[in-house]
Amino acid sequence: MFKRGGEQSTYGDVMREEFRSELSMISRTLVTMSQVTRDQMRRATSALLEADQTDAEQVLAADAEVDAYYRIIEDRVYDTMARQAPVASDLRLVITTLHMAADLERMGKLAAHIARSALRRHPGSAVAEPLHGIFKEMGVVADTLATKITKAMSERDIVAAGQLDRDDDAMDDLHSRLFGVMFQKEWPAGVEAAVDAALLGRYFERYADHAVNVGKHVVFLVTGENLDRE
Amino acid sequence: MFKRGGEQSTYGDVMREEFRSELSMISRTLVTMSQVTRDQMRRATSALLEADQTDAEQVLAADAEVDAYYRIIEDRVYDTMARQAPVASDLRLVITTLHMAADLERMGKLAAHIARSALRRHPGSAVAEPLHGIFKEMGVVADTLATKITKAMSERDIVAAGQLDRDDDAMDDLHSRLFGVMFQKEWPAGVEAAVDAALLGRYFERYADHAVNVGKHVVFLVTGENLDRE
Repeated sequence: MFKRGGEQSTYGDVMREEFRSELSMISRTLVTMSQVTRDQMRRATSALLEADQTDAEQVLAADAEVDAYYRIIEDRVYDTMARQAPVASDLRLVITTLHMAADLERMGKLAAHIARSALRRHPGSAVAEPLHGIFKEMGVVADTLATKITKAMSERDIVAAGQLDRDDDAMDDLHSRLFGVMFQKEWPAGVEAAVDAALLGRYFERYADHAVNVGKHVVFLVTGENLDRE
Repeated sequence: MFKRGGEQSTYGDVMREEFRSELSMISRTLVTMSQVTRDQMRRATSALLEADQTDAEQVLAADAEVDAYYRIIEDRVYDTMARQAPVASDLRLVITTLHMAADLERMGKLAAHIARSALRRHPGSAVAEPLHGIFKEMGVVADTLATKITKAMSERDIVAAGQLDRDDDAMDDLHSRLFGVMFQKEWPAGVEAAVDAALLGRYFERYADHAVNVGKHVVFLVTGENLDRE
């Protein structure tokens, strides 16, 4: 999974090989965590758009799973650092995986917030009719982002990771349109629906921000090039 | 600043002493960062409540300073890890400081969001009249939290850190009251003001969550006892 230099087998080489292998194992767990997070958001969006109580409850129940993945990765990171004592760029690599796990955990929490909003208005809908199309598109963009970061991580594909900013822009546009609709004089759905929409919009937007962060971390893992986080 | 065991001067002891000294230096930078973050929120709250353009602009200008502190701490953490190669609990200590810096950076961003909201409605107010008292109280609670974490960090005071949950509960109560006022039938201020308030309430609430996280990290730094994060 990772490239390495010369083939002379010294003690340092063996350590390095072990380090790379442990890092790959952490990366594979990150991929799984990313898939779980994507599924959580998919189901939360469906719960929101269809006012589906079962979906919403499943998202809330599975949030503990996302947390568990974070703990697993954290423990592995500490183990790896304790046993391999990586320095310089290796150290940054392994800590980067910790940042990625934190971003993914937060994405899971945002999906849970969306599910909770859906549940709060059940059997009604937390999404006012004039905003249904926008939230549907936000769900599609969120899923695209999550799919791309999963692919970027599993295939070490920095092209996919590099496209995330465009999807994030699409999310920002949808977010602006949301306010445009709500702030029209003829907004029919009342204050409560507007407040729900403002918070839901924020959750989708933050989900996208964290996905972009994950993408930047993937680029760093693959190339060693550090990009600014959102 | 940190206690240590026996006094036999071995090579390991010297390393450990150096490590403790570097950790103390990182902690001092965290205290300064925490003061900057507190001042940012103070000024952002004032900008919000008084619709003060100058205050709002100062907050936005100083956000780069908060980011700079994060980078300084990150660099020092990597330096320390590279030179001291700490293991086990020492490793967790030094990574904890990185988490604290990330929480403080996020608190700074939330203060900037509040300043931006104030600026967007200037010369009007982003706070509808019926909510002025609640946001004033939220500002007080936010400042109390920031003051306590600064004190907890600078004096390694786990009593102060332990009181943060109560302040966080106070913030949650204020947050609930906010929705109570907005969802009354006679809400007079319209949809736009309600949307502003929903997002502002969220920013204050998240600020409090991050402050509580910082407090839990302080407890871990001082006692080695790990508490769950929010």
